[in-house]
Amino acid sequence: MIRIGICGYGNLGRGVELAVTQACDMELVGVFTRRNPETVQTVSGVRVYSMDDIQEFKNRIDVMVLCGGSATDLPTQTPELVKYFNVVDSFDTHANIYKHYQNVDKEAKLSGKVGIISTGWDPGMFSLNRIYMEAVLPNGVDYTFWGKGVSQGHSDAIRRIKGVLDARQYTVPKEKALESVRSGNNPDLTTREKHLRDCYVVLKEDADPAYVEQEIKSMPNYFAEYDTYVHFISKEELEKNHKGIPHGGFVIRTGQTNTGVKHKIEYSLNLDSNPEFTGSVMTAYARACYRINEEGKSGAMTVFDVAPKYLSLTTLENLLKHTL
Amino acid sequence: MIRIGICGYGNLGRGVELAVTQACDMELVGVFTRRNPETVQTVSGVRVYSMDDIQEFKNRIDVMVLCGGSATDLPTQTPELVKYFNVVDSFDTHANIYKHYQNVDKEAKLSGKVGIISTGWDPGMFSLNRIYMEAVLPNGVDYTFWGKGVSQGHSDAIRRIKGVLDARQYTVPKEKALESVRSGNNPDLTTREKHLRDCYVVLKEDADPAYVEQEIKSMPNYFAEYDTYVHFISKEELEKNHKGIPHGGFVIRTGQTNTGVKHKIEYSLNLDSNPEFTGSVMTAYARACYRINEEGKSGAMTVFDVAPKYLSLTTLENLLKHTL
Repeated sequence: MIRIGICGYGNLGRGVELAVTQACDMELVGVFTRRNPETVQTVSGVRVYSMDDIQEFKNRIDVMVLCGGSATDLPTQTPELVKYFNVVDSFDTHANIYKHYQNVDKEAKLSGKVGIISTGWDPGMFSLNRIYMEAVLPNGVDYTFWGKGVSQGHSDAIRRIKGVLDARQYTVPKEKALESVRSGNNPDLTTREKHLRDCYVVLKEDADPAYVEQEIKSMPNYFAEYDTYVHFISKEELEKNHKGIPHGGFVIRTGQTNTGVKHKIEYSLNLDSNPEFTGSVMTAYARACYRINEEGKSGAMTVFDVAPKYLSLTTLENLLKHTL
Repeated sequence: MIRIGICGYGNLGRGVELAVTQACDMELVGVFTRRNPETVQTVSGVRVYSMDDIQEFKNRIDVMVLCGGSATDLPTQTPELVKYFNVVDSFDTHANIYKHYQNVDKEAKLSGKVGIISTGWDPGMFSLNRIYMEAVLPNGVDYTFWGKGVSQGHSDAIRRIKGVLDARQYTVPKEKALESVRSGNNPDLTTREKHLRDCYVVLKEDADPAYVEQEIKSMPNYFAEYDTYVHFISKEELEKNHKGIPHGGFVIRTGQTNTGVKHKIEYSLNLDSNPEFTGSVMTAYARACYRINEEGKSGAMTVFDVAPKYLSLTTLENLLKHTL
């Protein structure tokens, strides 16, 4: 049994907990939190410990799955914890991944552990599709679309506007852009042409809807560059129809092997729960992390470094007979 | 430069030739044929040699790409040639892959070479999707559909019927089955429910259309288990509209991470030329084959054993900054 720890217990931590407790080759040892452990109740009933005590588990946990955020938690947590554990994270600030990789690699090589960073679905499963598609169809162009799905960052940005009680923002790929890409035209698409932003907003009693709508639509980086739609709804409607955290998207590559000989490769995800699926991917990479370290390897890795067989519970014979 | 040889020069061999001559890290050394080399003219102008002389190239070729057929060529060629070369093949008789793997592994371990078997798109890219999908969504079911595309085997079967001059058979996935799978219903689908068979047949002058149609529709294993449609067309129409060798298909998995929390993963290929795309995939695996052998490894491998980075021409830094 691979002994797993979960560091950080929000939506993602609970997603990993669900996946690990369903994996027949894994044992969940504990959840680690910065909060007072006595105030945290896990879904599975597994014990909760203080982050301050995490080093004591050095010899009792094979892989620590890091479920903190990319903005402030993981840049320090992953390099620190790989000193004691094999670790898997879902670091997703694309611009800083290379720096993060270097930081983790340095510590992992010193400790002899493996740190698989940036797992999940993007980065993660989408990245795998981008690298495979480019390798097998080098003369081509790929496009990534996100949604329809909830963006926590954009929802939070709306909640910070004066007069907003709660909000949910959906990122939606535009059908016209998808069709243009699928046709193999290799279109140059602007930000506005690729996605639209659909906002469901609950106002406080004294709020000014016109002000809120204007503040949302003019917010640079978040909304100004997009066709943004604002819908004011009741607290009850938000609870009833917008409680989930769905997400998904598309990676599409079109290209040629010869003049006029076209090919299209398309990968898509349609996820009822972003954190549960991300947690499920991280759990598969926790298995790989353990196995690769057992082979004597160490250092930082990404999904690009992991041969698919390390993720699978199936025997080689069954893989060759039934999956290949 | 990775020095490549091509063994067997039909449609697939020409597909590999196209891909290798476009790869900036590869040099095509020669094509090997069982025919009289003087009768074979290559598209790129690369030299053609007799299969009888292939061993003489032991130190002049890094990877031999095997483009023979799975029925009679590859079962003997792959284990034989891995004695002298790193090899890549597209062995696709699913029922015999495990045996083929064992035969190749034995010889490759003795020679210190790497043999990557069963590359292409199914087995190959579809297999990769099956293993990744199952690993990240273990509580689910996956389905593979083929087409719309030309089946050479079924086209050949029609051509053997008395009175048939030429024929082209398309395998077509049924839209209703695709929709049922995508909905997450995990349907039990019969052979007839998954695909239909569309046949375009040119008759000889004295042929009996009713006889030919009956012979096709009642042919066990090939057509009797399917809804089969027979269209009689002229030689000119076949030449004009059915000359290509398109193919493709779908791998779809639906599953749950928790009660009622559903996810769908879908991968699809839409290929103008089956042999050109297959050749392009084999060429990417030829790069991986060379690199893995350079690291000192040997033995038989499949796409499951190859970490994605080995396929890519992009540097680690660029992969982490732009692809991940």
